[in-house]
Amino acid sequence: MNIPFTQRRTVKWGECDPAGIVYTPRFLDWSVEAVESTFRAVVGIHWPDMQERFGLAAPMKQISLEFSSPLRTYDEVDLTVTIDKLGRSSTSYRVTTRKSDGTLCFTALLTSVMIDFSTFRPVPIPADVRTPFERYITACGGTL
Amino acid sequence: MNIPFTQRRTVKWGECDPAGIVYTPRFLDWSVEAVESTFRAVVGIHWPDMQERFGLAAPMKQISLEFSSPLRTYDEVDLTVTIDKLGRSSTSYRVTTRKSDGTLCFTALLTSVMIDFSTFRPVPIPADVRTPFERYITACGGTL
Amino acid sequence: MNIPFTQRRTVKWGECDPAGIVYTPRFLDWSVEAVESTFRAVVGIHWPDMQERFGLAAPMKQISLEFSSPLRTYDEVDLTVTIDKLGRSSTSYRVTTRKSDGTLCFTALLTSVMIDFSTFRPVPIPADVRTPFERYITACGGTL
Amino acid sequence: MNIPFTQRRTVKWGECDPAGIVYTPRFLDWSVEAVESTFRAVVGIHWPDMQERFGLAAPMKQISLEFSSPLRTYDEVDLTVTIDKLGRSSTSYRVTTRKSDGTLCFTALLTSVMIDFSTFRPVPIPADVRTPFERYITACGGTL
Repeated sequence: MNIPFTQRRTVKWGECDPAGIVYTPRFLDWSVEAVESTFRAVVGIHWPDMQERFGLAAPMKQISLEFSSPLRTYDEVDLTVTIDKLGRSSTSYRVTTRKSDGTLCFTALLTSVMIDFSTFRPVPIPADVRTPFERYITACGGTL
Repeated sequence: MNIPFTQRRTVKWGECDPAGIVYTPRFLDWSVEAVESTFRAVVGIHWPDMQERFGLAAPMKQISLEFSSPLRTYDEVDLTVTIDKLGRSSTSYRVTTRKSDGTLCFTALLTSVMIDFSTFRPVPIPADVRTPFERYITACGGTL
Repeated sequence: MNIPFTQRRTVKWGECDPAGIVYTPRFLDWSVEAVESTFRAVVGIHWPDMQERFGLAAPMKQISLEFSSPLRTYDEVDLTVTIDKLGRSSTSYRVTTRKSDGTLCFTALLTSVMIDFSTFRPVPIPADVRTPFERYITACGGTL
Repeated sequence: MNIPFTQRRTVKWGECDPAGIVYTPRFLDWSVEAVESTFRAVVGIHWPDMQERFGLAAPMKQISLEFSSPLRTYDEVDLTVTIDKLGRSSTSYRVTTRKSDGTLCFTALLTSVMIDFSTFRPVPIPADVRTPFERYITACGGTL
């Protein structure tokens, strides 16, 4: 795994709208997929296993997106995922997306909350998730 | 419920590609949604309940699509769903899609197979599904 | 058109993830589609015509989403769209989504910027858009 | 480029439905993306350039899909694309999708037709496309 975790995408024809640029909601698909891949790479537990084996889930509570420059078909972008804040139950991910020439395309902030899947109530992030997350934050140069 | 079951859609901006026409895979999204709505309207059981309450599912086994004329943003289409064939475990749906002026846009044939969800093995379509399906075929002017 | 503009949706099977609830990014698809429909209903100009006839576009600059309660297959929701703020080039839409029993599901704030499509530079919102938008804000009980 | 062209995918959480398996229409998204990537790799011309520079497009005329075994989150699959038939205006692609253990997941046949984008009428496949396609068919062990 590269530090920070980075996912490369090539814009597909079907992701663009009649204006010839990526249709805005696709950026949230990309961001959530990047967070999903980061979770898997850093924690080593898959999202379905969180639910099936631990009875936990981490749905999104708050998301914000800021768009800087449009993308066209076959543009190549790197989505880099860092963790801004680790609370008792919440995790705030930052997804920074740049073209290979460094141009910033968009930034996404996504806050998920760890819940008990049977009650949908917040629970503390278990050590199996918290410990690798703390290591990842430190490895990325962040502070706990 | 109108007979045969018909679902109206207005083409959205984000469903079109840079050529300004509906991106082909969206037609399969529409077709499966039309079949889902038909199942719900005709049988009165939701797909999730098939699985949760009866331990059954009806995944697609075979699909074919034939495209006749392109669609653009804000075109309005009617998707009409009939049942071509009802086998022991299989159901063949036909989705016919026309613009309001009668122009044929595309036809989809979708064959699902009733399975036991725990084994993924085919099982006979239960009477709770078969009986309303037979009534629907007859109501649409088809023969059993 | 109802005031404020409201769009009803029924959650589809394919919009839900393995947790059985709507997959988060779908909420942004819904929000942008609701804004698109509001623009069309209030202004009377389609998004493709903005571009083809006026050389203008209104891409999103900033989006935030706040999630309150999950949705399951066949839940029915109403997306209500109001305009929070109308700037020189920018428009801030608020999408409020509730179940029929009044439960709040999510709120989205979307800010678009009117641009010249050939240069991607901001331009003042033309009167053909501003005037109906101002009338809509007033009709919804807002202040200019 | 590997011969035949192969695209690897890891199933994402959001591509699966409440049954925990890939939602059927996603397979057509994958298939069209695999064909798009094959076209780009074999012919060296992007789909948008076909339209913008040559005034041509190659929309799908007929698609069929046959499903063999379901896929779950994080399954890894290889989509292999060959060309079954090259007509005067039409191209028939075959997409074969297997898990790493060799299990067949689904097969898709997609036939596109080369058209003049201004008239939407079929035209002969130009030499710039036909020649590399013929070379590719031969390289894959097929016959012209």
